[in-house]
Amino acid sequence: MTENRQPEELRIAVIGAGAVGCYYGARLAQNGNDVHFLMRSDYAHVSQHGLRVQSKDGDFELNEMSCYQKTQDIGPCDLVIIALKATANDALETLIPPLLHEDTMLLTLQNGLGNEAFLAEHFGADRILGGLCFVCINRTAPGVIEHSAQGRISLGEYGREVLPRTRELHRVFSDAGIHCELVDDLALERWRKLVWNVPFNGLAIVGGSVDVGQILASPHLLSLARGLMKEVIEIAKQLGHRIPSEFIEENVERTYEMGAYRPSSLIDYEAGRVVETEAIWGEACRLAAKYDLQCGRLEFLYLLLKSVTSNSELNGHDSSAR
Amino acid sequence: MTENRQPEELRIAVIGAGAVGCYYGARLAQNGNDVHFLMRSDYAHVSQHGLRVQSKDGDFELNEMSCYQKTQDIGPCDLVIIALKATANDALETLIPPLLHEDTMLLTLQNGLGNEAFLAEHFGADRILGGLCFVCINRTAPGVIEHSAQGRISLGEYGREVLPRTRELHRVFSDAGIHCELVDDLALERWRKLVWNVPFNGLAIVGGSVDVGQILASPHLLSLARGLMKEVIEIAKQLGHRIPSEFIEENVERTYEMGAYRPSSLIDYEAGRVVETEAIWGEACRLAAKYDLQCGRLEFLYLLLKSVTSNSELNGHDSSAR
Repeated sequence: MTENRQPEELRIAVIGAGAVGCYYGARLAQNGNDVHFLMRSDYAHVSQHGLRVQSKDGDFELNEMSCYQKTQDIGPCDLVIIALKATANDALETLIPPLLHEDTMLLTLQNGLGNEAFLAEHFGADRILGGLCFVCINRTAPGVIEHSAQGRISLGEYGREVLPRTRELHRVFSDAGIHCELVDDLALERWRKLVWNVPFNGLAIVGGSVDVGQILASPHLLSLARGLMKEVIEIAKQLGHRIPSEFIEENVERTYEMGAYRPSSLIDYEAGRVVETEAIWGEACRLAAKYDLQCGRLEFLYLLLKSVTSNSELNGHDSSAR
Repeated sequence: MTENRQPEELRIAVIGAGAVGCYYGARLAQNGNDVHFLMRSDYAHVSQHGLRVQSKDGDFELNEMSCYQKTQDIGPCDLVIIALKATANDALETLIPPLLHEDTMLLTLQNGLGNEAFLAEHFGADRILGGLCFVCINRTAPGVIEHSAQGRISLGEYGREVLPRTRELHRVFSDAGIHCELVDDLALERWRKLVWNVPFNGLAIVGGSVDVGQILASPHLLSLARGLMKEVIEIAKQLGHRIPSEFIEENVERTYEMGAYRPSSLIDYEAGRVVETEAIWGEACRLAAKYDLQCGRLEFLYLLLKSVTSNSELNGHDSSAR
C-alpha cells in the first residue's frame, strides 16, 4: 500500500500544466520529489527553458523538468495530480489509464462540483482524493507562474475521512513548502470554496471585467456577492453541509487581502478560453432547482455567463485556482 | 374646461425633445396642431433645419417648427407633453410652472414608475395624465428620428377612469395618425409595459450590448427574460394589478416583430448618457422588498446595471420609448 512508502519514493504525475498544476508541481519537484508533467501548449518552451515561479513566498526556478506530451510516456505513478480544467474532463478517460497501477491515487485540484464523482465513476472511488486550492496564481506567460496571495490546499479523501495515505501526502506537500491542511469532509470544503467562486469568479466577468478589489469597492457588486453567497450556502444546507452565515463576512474580509486579484474565470474569459461555467455555476443551479430553492441571483448569473461566454470560448486549459 | 375646446384650439408644449417628444410632437404638428417644442442640444439644428421623421408609416419632414430654449418663452398651454427622461424630473419643478393655466393637462410619456405621482405632488393630481408608448423609435442624428416598429400610445388619467378631455386627446392623437387607445387603469398599463422594459432594456445592456433579436436568439437570455417578466408580474399582483401569466409569451411573440431593435436604455448606455435605472428597475426592486417578494433576478439585474452604468453616465436626455 502507498502508505508504507517513503515520501521520496512517490512517483508523481501532474496532468494539466496551467497555473495550478505548474505551481504545485514545481513546489514538489523543487523539494526533490519525482514529478512528471504532462504539457500541451507550453511543452516546447518549458522543456527547453524550465519554469519560473514568482511567488510572494520567494521566487524560484526549475531548470530541469520532466515534461511529456503523452501519459503513455510517463507510465504508472503513485500519485496523479489532476489540474485540467473541468471542461476538459472527457480527456481524462484516455489520459489517466497509462498512469495507473493498483494503488495509484488520483488527486483532483479542479474547481467546481462533480470532479471527484466523475473520476470515481471511471477509475474507482477508492483512488480518489480532492484538494481545494485557496491561492491566487496566474500563468502570466509560457513557463511563468505568478503567485500573488494565499496558497493553502485543503486535502481530503472522496467520501471518506482522512487515511494514513492522506497524512503522507500532507507531509509531502508540507515538506515542499505548501501550506496544507487535512479535511475529513471534502464535500463540505468544496461547498465552502464554491461560496467564494460563485460570486467572485462570476461577477468579475459580468461586472465588466473587474478584479476582486473592484467588486468589493462597488456597493452594488458587493451586495450581489453577499446575496449569491447566501444562496450557495442555502444549497449546501440542503445537501447536509452546514456553513454558518458568518462565513459570508469572513469571505468578504479574506477577499480584501487579495488586492486587485483577477479570478481565473475572468482571465480565461478575456483570453477567449473555455470558462468552467457548468462545474461552478451550472451544477449549483441544477441542485437549487432539484431542491426547489429560490436562487434567482445564482440563476441569473449562470444564464448571463452562459450567454456572454458562449461567443468568447475557443480552447485551452490554463487557469489559476480561484 | 378643456373638453369644450375644439381640437385645433389646443395649445401644446413638448418638453424633452428626444426621440419620443420629437416623434409624437412632429406627428401632431404635421396635422396642423399648435405645437411648441422645448429643445436643448438640438435647438440650433432643428430651428434651422427642422425635423425629419423616417417612419415605417411613411417619412415626413417638418420644416417650420416652434422651438424654444425656455418654457417662459412658450407660455401657458392646454396640454404639456412630458418626454424628458425620468432621471431629469427635478428640472420639471422649474420648467413646468410657466406653461400652466388653470386647466393645463400634463401628459407624461416617460418610462418607468413614479412619474405621474411626482407630477401630481408638484402640480396637482387633477392635471395629470399618462401615456405608455409602445414604439420603436431612435434619434439617429440631430433632427432625425427613425421610427422602425409599432407606435401605439395607451392613454389614461392618473388614478381616474377616462374623462371627456381624455377622449378629446384621443381624437387629436388619432387624427394626427398616432395609434392611440384609451385605458381606464393607467397604473395597470404601466406595469404591463414594465414587464417588457425590465427584461429587454436591462438584458440589452448586461448581456453585452445586444439587441432584442439577439436576446430572443439566446436560450439563456430568453430564459432570463421570461424569469424577469414573471417576477415583475408578481410585484404587480401585490399592488392589485392582475397580469395573466400568458402575457409573458405574448410579450415574447410581440418582441420577435421588433427585429434587431436596440432598446432606449442600451442606446443611452452606449452613448454615455444617464440610464433610467431607478425609474425602471430600482422602483420595482424596492416594491419587491417592501412586499417581501423573492425577486432575485430583478435584484441582480438592478444591482448589475447600477454597477455597469455608474461609470458610463455623463448627461443628456435623448431616448426612445422602449
